[in-house]
Amino acid sequence: MTEFSPGPDNPVQSRLLRLLRDEGPTSRAELADRLRVPRARLVAEVSRLSELRLVRDGGPAASRGGRRSTLVELDPDLRFAAVDLGATSVTVEVTDGVLNPLCAAEEPIDVRRGPVAVLTRISEILGKLAADGHCGQLAGLGIGVPGPVSFRDGTPVSPPIMPGWDRYPVRDRLAGRHGCPVVIDNDVNIMAIGERHGGVGRSVDNMLFVKVGTGVGCGIVVHGEVYRGSDGCAGDIGHIQVDGQGPVCSCGNTGCFEALFGGAALARDALAAARNGTSPALAERLANGAHITAVEVGEGAEEGDPTCIGLIRAGGRLLGSVLASQVSFMNPSMIVIGGGLAGLGHLLLAEVRSVVYRRSLPLATGNLPVVLSELGPRAGVVGAALLASELAYGHA
Amino acid sequence: MTEFSPGPDNPVQSRLLRLLRDEGPTSRAELADRLRVPRARLVAEVSRLSELRLVRDGGPAASRGGRRSTLVELDPDLRFAAVDLGATSVTVEVTDGVLNPLCAAEEPIDVRRGPVAVLTRISEILGKLAADGHCGQLAGLGIGVPGPVSFRDGTPVSPPIMPGWDRYPVRDRLAGRHGCPVVIDNDVNIMAIGERHGGVGRSVDNMLFVKVGTGVGCGIVVHGEVYRGSDGCAGDIGHIQVDGQGPVCSCGNTGCFEALFGGAALARDALAAARNGTSPALAERLANGAHITAVEVGEGAEEGDPTCIGLIRAGGRLLGSVLASQVSFMNPSMIVIGGGLAGLGHLLLAEVRSVVYRRSLPLATGNLPVVLSELGPRAGVVGAALLASELAYGHA
Repeated sequence: MTEFSPGPDNPVQSRLLRLLRDEGPTSRAELADRLRVPRARLVAEVSRLSELRLVRDGGPAASRGGRRSTLVELDPDLRFAAVDLGATSVTVEVTDGVLNPLCAAEEPIDVRRGPVAVLTRISEILGKLAADGHCGQLAGLGIGVPGPVSFRDGTPVSPPIMPGWDRYPVRDRLAGRHGCPVVIDNDVNIMAIGERHGGVGRSVDNMLFVKVGTGVGCGIVVHGEVYRGSDGCAGDIGHIQVDGQGPVCSCGNTGCFEALFGGAALARDALAAARNGTSPALAERLANGAHITAVEVGEGAEEGDPTCIGLIRAGGRLLGSVLASQVSFMNPSMIVIGGGLAGLGHLLLAEVRSVVYRRSLPLATGNLPVVLSELGPRAGVVGAALLASELAYGHA
Repeated sequence: MTEFSPGPDNPVQSRLLRLLRDEGPTSRAELADRLRVPRARLVAEVSRLSELRLVRDGGPAASRGGRRSTLVELDPDLRFAAVDLGATSVTVEVTDGVLNPLCAAEEPIDVRRGPVAVLTRISEILGKLAADGHCGQLAGLGIGVPGPVSFRDGTPVSPPIMPGWDRYPVRDRLAGRHGCPVVIDNDVNIMAIGERHGGVGRSVDNMLFVKVGTGVGCGIVVHGEVYRGSDGCAGDIGHIQVDGQGPVCSCGNTGCFEALFGGAALARDALAAARNGTSPALAERLANGAHITAVEVGEGAEEGDPTCIGLIRAGGRLLGSVLASQVSFMNPSMIVIGGGLAGLGHLLLAEVRSVVYRRSLPLATGNLPVVLSELGPRAGVVGAALLASELAYGHA
């Protein structure tokens, strides 16, 4: 791996950086208290981090009585890059050291073009943002990809929808190109991390983040950390069998959840309903030349089209039955629904809740909120930026 | 809570005690190396633990060259009690400091008699073992119970098959009675802990331990630690719905896994097969006055009775389908099958494996052993003794 400029070299420095990231400018006096180190030690650590251009003086702090303390803040020139790579699009954000977004870009991309073309394009986007003045030297880069990942090796592992990416050294290639530490994770995991850091899952210990997009996946948070499984493929609920007599799935098995519900399945069923006329709302859209997707189903449902409402409710019931099993198994303290189909909103949510609350052990659902994502489409980049900062700020 | 004689008061002492527990007598020189503390510090810690009667001199060590070192070993008078309380029986073991069993007792007990009667009987059993000379003052006691547990509060929580036990202060009552620290956990969790410490799951990070007894439950090991869930009821796979049109379960829902397979369901189906004559082997046993249980089904299968074989295979397929979902979700590195019905052995195992390997993501099953418990009926007490020792030896 490429060598980078030195980061923090001890846990006190890491805790200090994280505290400044999560709580903003803080006085030296309070930092010494919070980190439980003597004032002299604190001053020495701040001085060292200042030499590394990670923190700087932030002016005088409000007096707590006694000697006036000065504020410490993260260096305003710190930059993190966050990349959320989906099957058909990529979102890039550049943030400052406290993870506030400075600029963003989003564009269609076909992940099947392979790692060389896709990573080159991502670097071009970052270069363009740099040229616009938003992004100098990066302190870290986080990227989520739509497939299983070996977190340790920094590579995708047998990703079904990413031909050519298997074991490709994504982390090391990006690190070499951008001269900063890089972390790669699964796209659903970064959404779960984002939602837990800056969304509705703040401070929740055990959480399921369900992404319902073209496919369906689940990010699992255990004791505040994402659980990735032994091979990096935990949370693959899309291929849980929900109907032994169901349709054949792209994976070759029958009756997988994803073959029955998710963006792809919903578009398929909606197109059928548009063609055979059971849904006037969808038939009209098809006649007007629209491409029928989950969005059209959502619109139809809002207009009161019974077939559209029925499709969403049936999907919600299926999702609820899969989640009910996972609630019995995992006993989480929160379920968050995100991804493109979360746009179907409260109709979907109501069905999911109904099944989960009816089917799971009362003890497990007594205090279990089932809610929609707060960060929406930004969940992924927020998580990727957080992972990048964790890497740059070191292990606390 | 009751106050106890002081245990170790720092992490070095805890690591030292655990090392002696897991690896036996060790020389001072090696201890200093392994714990990465200066020799003088090691000597001081050993001396303090010796005053607490936790360790003692174990004679001269084999020479490594240079000054001869002496062995340190756990005090041979250390005693832990391990209790595995089931719905209808209780197993008690007393171990020494390295968790070798010194004596054991097992007897039928009806957990529905309530906590006062049952805990009194458990204390009587321990008193009797003490009178036989095996059990002096206990350094710790671990107990597993057949229901959800609040690990923090030391109480059962809404346990469905333990009337009268809800929130009963099991930990504190036993601690008061035996004058030692006590830890209470769910019965499947202690089996998982036991199997990971002293059975087939040694050193496995992410593991599912499936207990198939009268009911069905699952112990979940994540990063080497049991995961208990937000309300202490993680692993409740017995009430996952496997058949929307299935029989009504004791929980009130329809088609729960436990209503279709497990000791109770198998006994029900076997009795029906004995009565309607589809199984000659079971019919003969019933005519001879036998009580028809899973044991008779296992015997019938060994004799080649097709109905008995069919019952076991159907159960194995169901268990396999539930586990396939959990493999997709959890991506564990091992599945261990234990509990009374593990006695059905390789016929059951073959079906489970067949479904799990066919239904789960190849990436998740590539290196996934599905095996029978090595400790068998002792898994629970081994886990309870380990938990008791973790408590007594302190947090490393």
